[in-house]
Amino acid sequence: MKLSKSFTKTFKEVSKDETALNAQLLIKAGYINKEMAGVYDFLPLGVRVLENIKNVVREELNAIGCEEMQLTALQNPESWEKTGRWNSEKMDIWFKTELSAGGLLGLAPTHEEPLTNLMTRYISSYKDLPAYIYQFQTKFRNELRAKSGILRTREFLMKDLYSFSLNEEEHNKFYHEVEQAYARIYDRLGLGDCTYECFASGGAFSKYSHEYQTITPVGEDTVYHNKDYSVVLNEEVFNDEVLADLGVTREEMEPTRAAEVGNIFTLRYKFSEPMGLEYNDDKGDKQTVFMGSYGIGISRVMGVIVEKYADEKGIVWPENIAPYKYYVIGIGEKGEKEAEKLYEKLGADNCILDDRDARPGQKFADAELMGIPYRVVISDKTLENEGAEITTRATGDVKNVSLSDIIE
Amino acid sequence: MKLSKSFTKTFKEVSKDETALNAQLLIKAGYINKEMAGVYDFLPLGVRVLENIKNVVREELNAIGCEEMQLTALQNPESWEKTGRWNSEKMDIWFKTELSAGGLLGLAPTHEEPLTNLMTRYISSYKDLPAYIYQFQTKFRNELRAKSGILRTREFLMKDLYSFSLNEEEHNKFYHEVEQAYARIYDRLGLGDCTYECFASGGAFSKYSHEYQTITPVGEDTVYHNKDYSVVLNEEVFNDEVLADLGVTREEMEPTRAAEVGNIFTLRYKFSEPMGLEYNDDKGDKQTVFMGSYGIGISRVMGVIVEKYADEKGIVWPENIAPYKYYVIGIGEKGEKEAEKLYEKLGADNCILDDRDARPGQKFADAELMGIPYRVVISDKTLENEGAEITTRATGDVKNVSLSDIIE
Repeated sequence: MKLSKSFTKTFKEVSKDETALNAQLLIKAGYINKEMAGVYDFLPLGVRVLENIKNVVREELNAIGCEEMQLTALQNPESWEKTGRWNSEKMDIWFKTELSAGGLLGLAPTHEEPLTNLMTRYISSYKDLPAYIYQFQTKFRNELRAKSGILRTREFLMKDLYSFSLNEEEHNKFYHEVEQAYARIYDRLGLGDCTYECFASGGAFSKYSHEYQTITPVGEDTVYHNKDYSVVLNEEVFNDEVLADLGVTREEMEPTRAAEVGNIFTLRYKFSEPMGLEYNDDKGDKQTVFMGSYGIGISRVMGVIVEKYADEKGIVWPENIAPYKYYVIGIGEKGEKEAEKLYEKLGADNCILDDRDARPGQKFADAELMGIPYRVVISDKTLENEGAEITTRATGDVKNVSLSDIIE
Repeated sequence: MKLSKSFTKTFKEVSKDETALNAQLLIKAGYINKEMAGVYDFLPLGVRVLENIKNVVREELNAIGCEEMQLTALQNPESWEKTGRWNSEKMDIWFKTELSAGGLLGLAPTHEEPLTNLMTRYISSYKDLPAYIYQFQTKFRNELRAKSGILRTREFLMKDLYSFSLNEEEHNKFYHEVEQAYARIYDRLGLGDCTYECFASGGAFSKYSHEYQTITPVGEDTVYHNKDYSVVLNEEVFNDEVLADLGVTREEMEPTRAAEVGNIFTLRYKFSEPMGLEYNDDKGDKQTVFMGSYGIGISRVMGVIVEKYADEKGIVWPENIAPYKYYVIGIGEKGEKEAEKLYEKLGADNCILDDRDARPGQKFADAELMGIPYRVVISDKTLENEGAEITTRATGDVKNVSLSDIIE
């Protein structure tokens, strides 16, 4: 991308009502724009980061046999009345709206009901199971207070996966595969070393659910962990019964702040039973489908990554999810010409060329604010030397390299 | 994709209230699911077709210098009040909803207001222009009557592009580039030979706008065209003044039904003026930004393609947008083994392997209903012969080819 051709701009200041570091930096660097409290647009750079995160998640889920589809935001009350969740006292985050043709609709805050209902048309025999289905879908949640920048918003992008299994045994096998896929996902997103699977309340239907918690001071949750983090639990289940169950003592557990970046639930029959999602087993007897759900907040993960890696100069993206890998700056007539050539060779999809009519100092600062992994400077001086100077954003390491080495 | 592992299923019958051919076929073949009137889920096959259509549009728009971003569905009344469009009498398709924290929000039926407002933060000088920005975004429209399957729905995927130019001259140049890009897009989508640029009302702010109309009996519009379709106009502007303007006579124009698959508007200052989107020109004087908007209904285009190509056996996808290129069926033990090998070589991303425990007749019928471009059958008989039998869905042509030829 040539910066001179993009409408993207960086800002020195951001509105005072934006108190979260992730949103401040993402607005300053031109990744997002605030529409109103808890509602953010994603600008071209932001869309690229979201796509990169989605692709990591998509690859890992497809690898364990999941299928991608797209449910709707508009929701008919019918399915939700069957589980009782249409009632705004039971689910207090509904946005509801009136249909011109008559009746109320809701905006989906989650999708268990419509998918379970849909599957009653697709599952009738044990031969139709298991089924693993996910989507990347905008969720709407009528939060009383939006907070923490893009960590808790009223409209956000979520990956939600649902599993439909013959029985608990088949479910447990898949649940474990998702645990392994999630570990690979957080590794690839650069959160592997500070994200832990954490015991949390299973609600009315299971003993525990699992959350994926990234240790960060901006997190909204408090988790307790033992020394080597082999046992981590949410404070909501920090009690003697659970501690005994997990074989740890109250004394060895330390509290710390963490942000939830994913969760996995054994739903059992909570949705399949009221909605009549059944199958005929191999003896011809009716059985209820055993379900699970597995979420990752895609835009939330983006915010957590910003919080974790940012330094005083701005954002620092892990290479896998950076919008572009290189930020190329040419200085002087010859440097600019060589920079343009390098840009053509690296490709507009990998590389930002800062060809704006601006001082080198501003370009250096913007490269750092945007968090692009490698800054490449070409000037008369670097051309006399090896060819270009590469600075690694994460470490500040500077290297002189030949232009052909970069292309390789 | 292995059909035995997918939850996708075909249906012989579809609910009687679904009267549109496109929705009937897409439901039967497992591409979409009806949530309620005018609201459809996209199943794995359907998501792949949408992605293919998006990719064609994305490539052509990126090639003319457009940038992709993502605005929000939730809308603050503020911007819309400035243009008067918050008023439900002026814009009668709003879904509005109440915020827990107080106040009303709307669900965006289109995005001129929020983007124009956003651009007031990004445009201040003539150096910031032009800017060409698009998104693929779900639109919500509170239609009194949903109809024609996925052609007119209450929640649908749209590509909307907006241009921000210095003046009318710069605008006209880009407008013409979009016309050429649209011609390439409809060609690549398989609609080139029956889609025409058509004069339509320009509304209060321009003499004409242009629609892209695909000739089809299921279309909701009536357009008039001359013999060689060099002049096509919407019936809303079929009057003596316009006819004289376009140099055609009433007698040479014939009416026909057509479906709108895109539109382009010169917006002039309609949005930039009330919202104060201005720039300083090279003399330091304030000027108002000159705008245009350019839409393509992605899910609607999918429905129009189904209508245009379908035959008595089902859907017929043009190769560019088919969810998979090949549908491989093995018959007999040896045939199944070779089919599986061929599938591995072609790759799960190009190929459906129908490895279900089902009769060959049902597999043939499903391949045709789903509209996959090439059906490949491998049996003892074909193995004795060249290796496989390929049937082209669109023409019914049957050819015997060697397995290695298919892979090449």
